[in-house]
Amino acid sequence: MAQRPRLGEFELIARHFAPLAAGQAGALGLTDDAALLAPSPGEVHVLTADTLVGGVHFRPDDPPELVARKLLRVNLSDLAAMAARPAAYLLALSLSAGCDDAWVAAFAAGLAQDQDEFGIGLLGGDTTATPGPLSATITAIGEVPVGGELRRSGARPGETVFVSGSLGDAALGLMALDGGLSGLDETMAARLIDRYQVPRPRVGLGQALRGVATAAADVSDGLVADLGHICEASGVAARIDHARLPVGPEARAAIARHPPAASAVLTGGDDYELVFTAPPEAAGAVSEAASRSGVAVTEIGTVHDGAGVKVLAEDGRELALPTTGYRHF
Amino acid sequence: MAQRPRLGEFELIARHFAPLAAGQAGALGLTDDAALLAPSPGEVHVLTADTLVGGVHFRPDDPPELVARKLLRVNLSDLAAMAARPAAYLLALSLSAGCDDAWVAAFAAGLAQDQDEFGIGLLGGDTTATPGPLSATITAIGEVPVGGELRRSGARPGETVFVSGSLGDAALGLMALDGGLSGLDETMAARLIDRYQVPRPRVGLGQALRGVATAAADVSDGLVADLGHICEASGVAARIDHARLPVGPEARAAIARHPPAASAVLTGGDDYELVFTAPPEAAGAVSEAASRSGVAVTEIGTVHDGAGVKVLAEDGRELALPTTGYRHF
Repeated sequence: MAQRPRLGEFELIARHFAPLAAGQAGALGLTDDAALLAPSPGEVHVLTADTLVGGVHFRPDDPPELVARKLLRVNLSDLAAMAARPAAYLLALSLSAGCDDAWVAAFAAGLAQDQDEFGIGLLGGDTTATPGPLSATITAIGEVPVGGELRRSGARPGETVFVSGSLGDAALGLMALDGGLSGLDETMAARLIDRYQVPRPRVGLGQALRGVATAAADVSDGLVADLGHICEASGVAARIDHARLPVGPEARAAIARHPPAASAVLTGGDDYELVFTAPPEAAGAVSEAASRSGVAVTEIGTVHDGAGVKVLAEDGRELALPTTGYRHF
Repeated sequence: MAQRPRLGEFELIARHFAPLAAGQAGALGLTDDAALLAPSPGEVHVLTADTLVGGVHFRPDDPPELVARKLLRVNLSDLAAMAARPAAYLLALSLSAGCDDAWVAAFAAGLAQDQDEFGIGLLGGDTTATPGPLSATITAIGEVPVGGELRRSGARPGETVFVSGSLGDAALGLMALDGGLSGLDETMAARLIDRYQVPRPRVGLGQALRGVATAAADVSDGLVADLGHICEASGVAARIDHARLPVGPEARAAIARHPPAASAVLTGGDDYELVFTAPPEAAGAVSEAASRSGVAVTEIGTVHDGAGVKVLAEDGRELALPTTGYRHF
């Protein structure tokens, strides 16, 4: 019943994927039935899996290098939110009829580039064919000292809410790709598109926040939705000040020309920043973690008794939210 | 760009998948960014990932319970081949437009049934939508004592080749499903179909073979292909005696009516038996492992210097092989 790409499964693995596993002794050259991996002494494994589907999570004509890097990075962002150090990953790739050897080579080149950047390697996986669009799942494995992980459930009333980097860039980048930001300076549009296509998982910051932050999540569904997840898991409410949200110059320019796009800052998905909480007395430690990892961190609000996320305008009024976050369906 | 099934991602997870994670403390209720898992002291993790795609690896109208169980079991078979004890799994599910809530409920029920049988639980994953056929990837994680895993590379000349259970049933079951075994007794056909739809991963036997077998693989691509993988990894050749191959009564009946179907025994995929090697003096230990795990094991050949797999007829002639195994493309 299967479709047949140009190379067989074993040739594909040997040519394009075995080199990605060269630095992982436990991958056993990708020639065994499974792989071996042990956490370092005193650490536990942190595991996450995310799938990207052509036409759903990326555009079918997106460059394969960028699809590969985005897939790896969205998984690394989950590890970052748990304060884990990336260790290795498994790749399950379902190739559509249009994916020839050159496509797979470019996809593997994207993975190779990011493996170097994040210090990880391929551990195993599966390659198959699909009559549908290309689909790829990565299971990423990290390590964290026992009890050192950050969860969503630790936020307490009186604490401060922080977010890393800048918000809304990725959602605006997708709008730019779709031709929805006409008139925006081309360099600025390209930077937003890059933020959408190549997320920056905050793996250094996540680890630096061990013992500092009380709860964390990555901003994949939008700030309000993901901070909402923290609130729900922690049994608390959060209030954030709209004026304090970190918005970069490109996003400001885009929103100035297209005011309805402002919702991207609150509810746009795919930013892959970290939103986290910490007690007021940890403000210095948060700053130190930010400078140690080279990522800006902004104080955006506070944690309270109650439930849900409120966004306050400069005059103290509560802003109505157009939606409660991007949903992957 | 996404299609929208009846339930949102969070409702799907809460309703159908969170109950599957109830016994896995490290799953954190499936409400965090990633999961935690540590091997037992003195053990390492064994990891494998396999994908099933509708129309490629199963028939689009196959019952969702059986698709789920097959997906889990093909992964467990990889763990079995490495002598690992199953521990947990991550599920990445891409739902096609036709998968409604009832479909997901049945899929989850299949997983629940097999979780009980194999003593594992859901650790995490991802749920998304696809415009293509249903696609699902499981990453299974097992444990094995340090150095206790079975690999494909340990076979040495002079050793014996064994295989578990019976061969060809699954490929014949697929033929029966496709209407290609006309005239076969219905009960027999149903048993073959069951072997195709619900593999029996030999997880007990795999663990019992620690320290006994020198090399092992699961028979997913066909006996000749998978024994060929052992030979390649070990740098040896194998000769197997056609007359000694374990063929069950249903397969014998099917082949008697449809003689060309005999190739299923040598090159049919999806049997998920274990093929393994052991020195002659370990024959008693192999028997003991077989009875301890309740799985028949048959001596089928020998390991030699050289390369490749030869199949000998009763008169000692080498049999020509129609293909060298099922390929997933």
